[in-house]
This record gives sequence, structure tokens and C-alpha cells, in this order.
Amino acid sequence: MLCRRVCIKLKKYFISGQNHSKYSVISSVLEKAKIGEVAEIKGWVKSLRIQKDHIFADVNDGSCAQKLQILIPKHLKTDALTYGSSVHIAGKLSKSPRGQLELLAENVTVLGKCVVLDGYPFNPRTAHPPEYVRQYLHLRSRTNYFSAILRVRNALTRHIHEYFASKNYLHINTPILTSNDCEGAGEVFKVQPENDETIKVMMQEGCNRDTVYFGTKTYLTVSGQLHLESICRGMGNVYTLGPTFRAENSRSRLHLSEFYMLEAEIAFCESILKLQDVIEDLLKYLFVETWNTNESDMFLIDKNNRAPKWTNKDFITLTYDEARNILDKKGLISTEEGINKEQELALVDYCKVPVFVTQWPKDLKSFYMKESPLDSTKVDALDLLAPITGEIVGGSLREDNYDKLKRKLPSEQLNWYLELRKFGNIPTGGFGLGLERIMQVLCNISNIKDTLPFPRWPHNCDM
Amino acid sequence: MLCRRVCIKLKKYFISGQNHSKYSVISSVLEKAKIGEVAEIKGWVKSLRIQKDHIFADVNDGSCAQKLQILIPKHLKTDALTYGSSVHIAGKLSKSPRGQLELLAENVTVLGKCVVLDGYPFNPRTAHPPEYVRQYLHLRSRTNYFSAILRVRNALTRHIHEYFASKNYLHINTPILTSNDCEGAGEVFKVQPENDETIKVMMQEGCNRDTVYFGTKTYLTVSGQLHLESICRGMGNVYTLGPTFRAENSRSRLHLSEFYMLEAEIAFCESILKLQDVIEDLLKYLFVETWNTNESDMFLIDKNNRAPKWTNKDFITLTYDEARNILDKKGLISTEEGINKEQELALVDYCKVPVFVTQWPKDLKSFYMKESPLDSTKVDALDLLAPITGEIVGGSLREDNYDKLKRKLPSEQLNWYLELRKFGNIPTGGFGLGLERIMQVLCNISNIKDTLPFPRWPHNCDM
Repeated sequence: MLCRRVCIKLKKYFISGQNHSKYSVISSVLEKAKIGEVAEIKGWVKSLRIQKDHIFADVNDGSCAQKLQILIPKHLKTDALTYGSSVHIAGKLSKSPRGQLELLAENVTVLGKCVVLDGYPFNPRTAHPPEYVRQYLHLRSRTNYFSAILRVRNALTRHIHEYFASKNYLHINTPILTSNDCEGAGEVFKVQPENDETIKVMMQEGCNRDTVYFGTKTYLTVSGQLHLESICRGMGNVYTLGPTFRAENSRSRLHLSEFYMLEAEIAFCESILKLQDVIEDLLKYLFVETWNTNESDMFLIDKNNRAPKWTNKDFITLTYDEARNILDKKGLISTEEGINKEQELALVDYCKVPVFVTQWPKDLKSFYMKESPLDSTKVDALDLLAPITGEIVGGSLREDNYDKLKRKLPSEQLNWYLELRKFGNIPTGGFGLGLERIMQVLCNISNIKDTLPFPRWPHNCDM
Repeated sequence: MLCRRVCIKLKKYFISGQNHSKYSVISSVLEKAKIGEVAEIKGWVKSLRIQKDHIFADVNDGSCAQKLQILIPKHLKTDALTYGSSVHIAGKLSKSPRGQLELLAENVTVLGKCVVLDGYPFNPRTAHPPEYVRQYLHLRSRTNYFSAILRVRNALTRHIHEYFASKNYLHINTPILTSNDCEGAGEVFKVQPENDETIKVMMQEGCNRDTVYFGTKTYLTVSGQLHLESICRGMGNVYTLGPTFRAENSRSRLHLSEFYMLEAEIAFCESILKLQDVIEDLLKYLFVETWNTNESDMFLIDKNNRAPKWTNKDFITLTYDEARNILDKKGLISTEEGINKEQELALVDYCKVPVFVTQWPKDLKSFYMKESPLDSTKVDALDLLAPITGEIVGGSLREDNYDKLKRKLPSEQLNWYLELRKFGNIPTGGFGLGLERIMQVLCNISNIKDTLPFPRWPHNCDM
């Protein structure tokens, strides 16, 4: 086995050959490096300023919002060194006359050219509008605005997992494919195999293209809640963060066909107040932590955005009836039941902090929500309303009475869900929160399509 | 806004009312509590032993592998207190004659009955075979074996995110819905809206049910790699951990229709050795850390399982030709090209540690893999072979030469992928790793259907 030893030698050579510099990314150069040290960076040229003897290049590698300024002696400049090109630059760190850290280039290699006239859609020092950038999904991570959004999304996701791990919640992968057909109000995607040969081989009597593969019609999930409840009734507190789907014909700035939901189910939860506590604590944690870790990105996305003041205030709770009364007094009520988007935003504006609306009329909410002990026409459900998006969280206690649930069960296919109440049942409550909506509120992003790398909406499934 | 103050008061009352005990779950009682302290636990009765004056109950709440032994005075026993019932028990911590921590119950409330004769599928002190338990997916988390698996899966996932965060990789949500049709070798699921009304409203000339919603045929992803490459070429190192799908008609112990893939793309990666380094380091980290954090769960899943010895040895590297030679000498070669499952396991058995197979014939591998600089009939690809499952990781350097990639591009729909090589291109390499296969190797689980909460495979999409 000669090969192994050779490989190990090669590896050692290779690794030492790569480690001229202590810093692998620009964020660590900016954080840790000292004047006089050698640094080697790889990234993309964001702008070039050509002077008499030198060229100033701003280079970013995606690791942070900041660019590193590079001072390049003119004799190292080649035609390939342009805006948008990828470069490998080695040199010594120094301080610019303005006191800024800069790299004095000793070696410049252009890894990949970028000829703007050959169809590159972006221009230096130009803030292209998000709708324009969205046309070039595959190159969108090259823009300052969008790469900052992806860093914030990464941080927000990390903080979510940190939060729940610190509270001993288990992360559960609820399924994407499901045979439950009763939750999406008809607005679901169905799934079948593409390959005719597979269908032919698997076909059995009584089946059709929709049922041949799984033996039942199969849909993309609209929520992992019912599945979470099943695990919660054996293992305690659980959560999931994954993709969910709606086949709605909606092209609003608040809707996507594929989006991420954070859903949590709390074991032994007997009061809606406990649920509110968890939601309020979670949201404050996420906003405070993400501002702490990604302030530069937040300002890059919107220089006028500020950390919200409500993170050290109590959220307000209104019952549905109280909320409707307030709207009535403001002349914002119609004959229609429920609270629409405009009304949601009016309530947030009135309260100045996020608002829980609780005690909802039973008919407006889902079958699994627990009948209120105070009023049998109401359920122990809540919506949390926030600026920009209105509703960002929906939750409830779950009906844990076997007979009451049986009467409301929409389909026999959910007998498994009913049976959870039969054996060692416990009271639970939970909530769902749209990750993209949180991104909108957090970063002040008006269109939800700019909160995730590859948005899908009606007539749009590029790449 | 009276409601707000009332709510805050209620909250305070409620919270203090809940906090008799310092410990909310059994894992923290076992870790931190002291003899003589008050404790309050909620969980499920795993076994009952009735003695003359007392009852011994073992209670578990899902927070850890261990059960807490409860000593219940006979007068607190009710008919509802049975195996499988859910209970709320308060009392004082003490030491059993055997030196074990136990709770002397002062208060026992049965929250949910469990009448085994009424259809509960599990029995006390019985190790039901996994195939039997799998028939009751909704109750599976109640079994010791399966709840241990879910805790390990949760820990493994957390360690993956820790690893990549510590190395400055960004987590990217690659899309589940995609219009790319060329990667799944035909074995893909297609997606369309279920609702006829939606289809009617959205229908345009030239469209059919398959294309009406997105304007193009839409599939469930088989890999996030191409999308990761797009982000990597603007932001550096990235990874994704999410669901992927195959519409294969396979019912083996190694295949699922919906499974989780960890995929990473490494920026500025010019050598397959660097890729091997990352994979080897990652796998060792995951195995060592998960054994550290979840040893009791590992033994609960398989009491004969041990932490692998290869975590402090070097993996072996063989070229494809070398691997075939070894198989030939062992009389295991056929005329067929490639390396089949039996051969994979023979190579692992021969080498005693995980084995990288590199330098693959071009025709056996995907269009995006980089032509080897040493031999134009080969590509710089790798498979990593491990015990139990054979291949667990596949990876390659990516073809970064525009002209070579253009000649191999399987569809015009991937022009966006080609264009990534045109503007500020960089060399990258990456790999994909099946999370469920890692779970199989880590926990010694023979059937992949037992590695995730809700397995989907041909003819099976329960819940």
C-alpha cells in the first residue's frame, strides 16, 4: 500500500504549501492580523481606483461585510485585473494614511476574468435595485446587498439552533412528503414520479399516476406540526426548521411557494401564557443576537435600520375581541370576521411593540386548536403581529380531549393523530414562525423574495 | 390597555407556580440534583414493579437515555398508573439501597392513561424488533431504541453545524423545487398543484398541468451542489444540510425516497487532497463528538457498538485502478466497470479503515467533475467507502474550464451553471454525504428506515 504513504507526504507538502498566511479569510485578517504581518487573500475585486503609481483595489471574499483595501504597484497590474475578477493576492499588512488596514500587494494572480461588456450584469459602485438583481439569481451572491442578507440568514439560523439547544429542545426532521391532505386548504403541491418506466413497473390494480409510487396520493408538506406532536408525546420539547410549500396563486411581497418554517411543540404546556413566554423570549433572543453578531451586514442591507427598541419591553396581549374593539374605534372595522393585513399593521402601529392576539373564535381557526376553558366558542390560539409583515407567528394549545378532537377531525387519514390522545397523552402547545418573514422584519426587507437564495413563486422557478 | 398588566401579572403567577423544582427534565435531575432536594418530573412510565408497601416506577421523559426510578407509596397508586401512562410526579430525591438516585413520590398525577389492551402496540420490558415498531410510526418515539436514535440524530446534526460554523462556512438553503432536469438520471419526482381551480385560473397557452404553475416542469431536488457552487462563487465556503429525493423503485436497507444530504463546496480548492482532508477531518470530528455527547444513547441502540478505532488513524487512499487490482487479486472482479456494493465492503474490510477511491474513469462520473491533469480519461473525483454502507461520501473537483464544461453540459437549461465560469471564476471542489448513511455507520443500524423519524420508501408514505 505504497499509495497511502505517498498521499500522506503529498498532503503534508500541500498543506504547508497553502499556509503562507495565518489568515484564510478577510474577516479574520480584519479581526486579528497585525501591521507588518504577511497575508494572503482570495476574493473578488469590488472596485478599482487607478492612480499614478499605484492601483487601489477593494476586495471582498464573502466572509464579512467589509472589503480589504489592496495597494497594488502599477507593474503588477494586468489587463485581467478588473472589477468582478477573482484574485489571489499576497503581501504585507500596513496602515493607510487614513489609518485603515491595507494590504501592500507583492503578488497578484487573477484567477478568473470578468469582462463586463461580455454580459456581466453588475457595475462597480452601483446599487442595483433588488428587482434587477433578482433576474440574475446565479450571480446574486456577488452583490454586497445580497451577500449581506445571506450572512444574516446564516447567523439567524445558527442562533435559532443555539436557542433551542440551550433549552434542551430536540431538532426533528419532519417529513417533506406526506399523505395528509387536510391541512393546506387545498393549496398543496402533489408529487409523482417523472419516469414512465418506473410508473409502468410499479403499477398495480386500483392505482393511477398519483398513487402508484407510494400507494397513496402524496403532497409536499404545509406544516410539520402534527408530526412534531407525535414525537413530543414521547420525547418532550421538540422543534423543526425546514422547507414548507403552498401552491397559492399569490405574487405578493409576503408570499413564496417554498419557504422555511420554524415550528416548536412544547410538552406539558397547559397555558397559552407559557407559549407566549417562549415566543417572546425566542424573538428577543434572535433579534438581539443577530444584531450583535451581524451589525455591519444589517447596515449594509439598510443603512437606516436600527436594532428594535421592543427587545427590552413587554409585548402586548389583546384578546381577539379587544383587538376588534380597538380597530372599531379607529374606524378600521368591516363586517368581515378575522383581522386582515391592514388591520394587523394598524394594531402594531397602535401598540408600538409586537402584539399577541389571543382567544380566537373557533370557526376562524384550525381543528386541532384547544377549546378555551373560559368560552366554548373560542380557542386558545394566538397570532403575533409585528411591523412590516403583520402576522409572524401563529400558535395554539392543542386539543387534548379525545372526544372533542374526534368530533372535529377532518379526515380518517388523521386517525393516527387522534390516537396520540389515547395512550399516555399529555397537554402540548406550539407555534410556527416563517423564517423569511423574520428576515423581513429583522433586516427591513420589503420583498420576501430577497430573503433567501433561490425564491420560488408563481411562474418563477429559475435554476 | 388593562389587558397587558393583567397578563403580566398572570404570567408571573403562572411561572412561579411552575417552578417548584429547579430541574425541568430528567437529564438535568440526573446531572445536577442533590440528595434531599425537591424534584418535579413529567414523563412516561416505562415499567412498574409492585411490592408490598411500595411501587417502583421507571420514568423517562425523552431528555436522555436514562430512566429515573420513582418510589411510590402504595396509597398514591391509582388504576390509571400503568405502563405507558404519562405522569406528573413531585417528591424528594434520595438514594436507593443500591446507591442509585431515586425520587420518593409525594404527589402522583396521571396525565394520560394507557390501556395496553385497548390497542397500545408496545409491552413493558420487551425489545420489539425494529420492523414491528416501524408499523407504528406515530408512537415510535415512545420506544427506548428509537428515542435514542432521535437524540443521536439531533446531536449529529448539531455537531455538523458546529463544525462548519467553526470553519467559517456559510449555511445555505438550496432549493427543494428546481427546474433542473438533468441530474437525477430520470429518477426524479415531479411537482404540480393539486387544486383544479388554481390550475384553471393560472392556465396559459402552451402550458399543461406540469408547467402551468411555474411556467416550467418542476422537480424535487436530487442535490444542492450546483446551487451551492453559485453561492460559493461569490461568498467562499458554503454548505447545506437538507432533504433530497429519489423516485427509485428500490426497497433495499440502504435507500429512501426522501433523505438528508450534507453537501459542502470549498472555494479556491485546487487539489483533491484538500477535499480529502476536509472530509476526513469532518468525519472524525462527528464520530468523536457524537460518541462524547451521546454514549448512553449509542449503547442503548446497540450495546455491542464501540467508538471506531479509525478516528485516530489515517484514512487510506487508493486510485480506482489500484482498488480494482486489489479486488482482482481477491478474485472479486467482474467484467463490469465501477465498484459495486460487495466490492466496496471488501475494500473496507481489506484496509481496516475508511478508504478514499480517487482518479475515476470519466465515463463513470458526472459531467461537472474536473478532468484530471494527469490523465484526460480520468476525473478528479472520489468516493469514500466505510463499513456497513460502503460508499458514504462522493465528491470531486469541479470542471472550471469554460470550454471543457460547455462540451459536457447535458442541457441548455444549465447555461447559468456554465456562466458561473465566465465571470470571476474560481476553482472549487465539494462533496455530498448522506446523513442517514452516517447514522447507520455511527450507530450500527442495519436498516436506513430506522435512522429518521418518518421514512418514505416505495409504497410507504404513512402520516
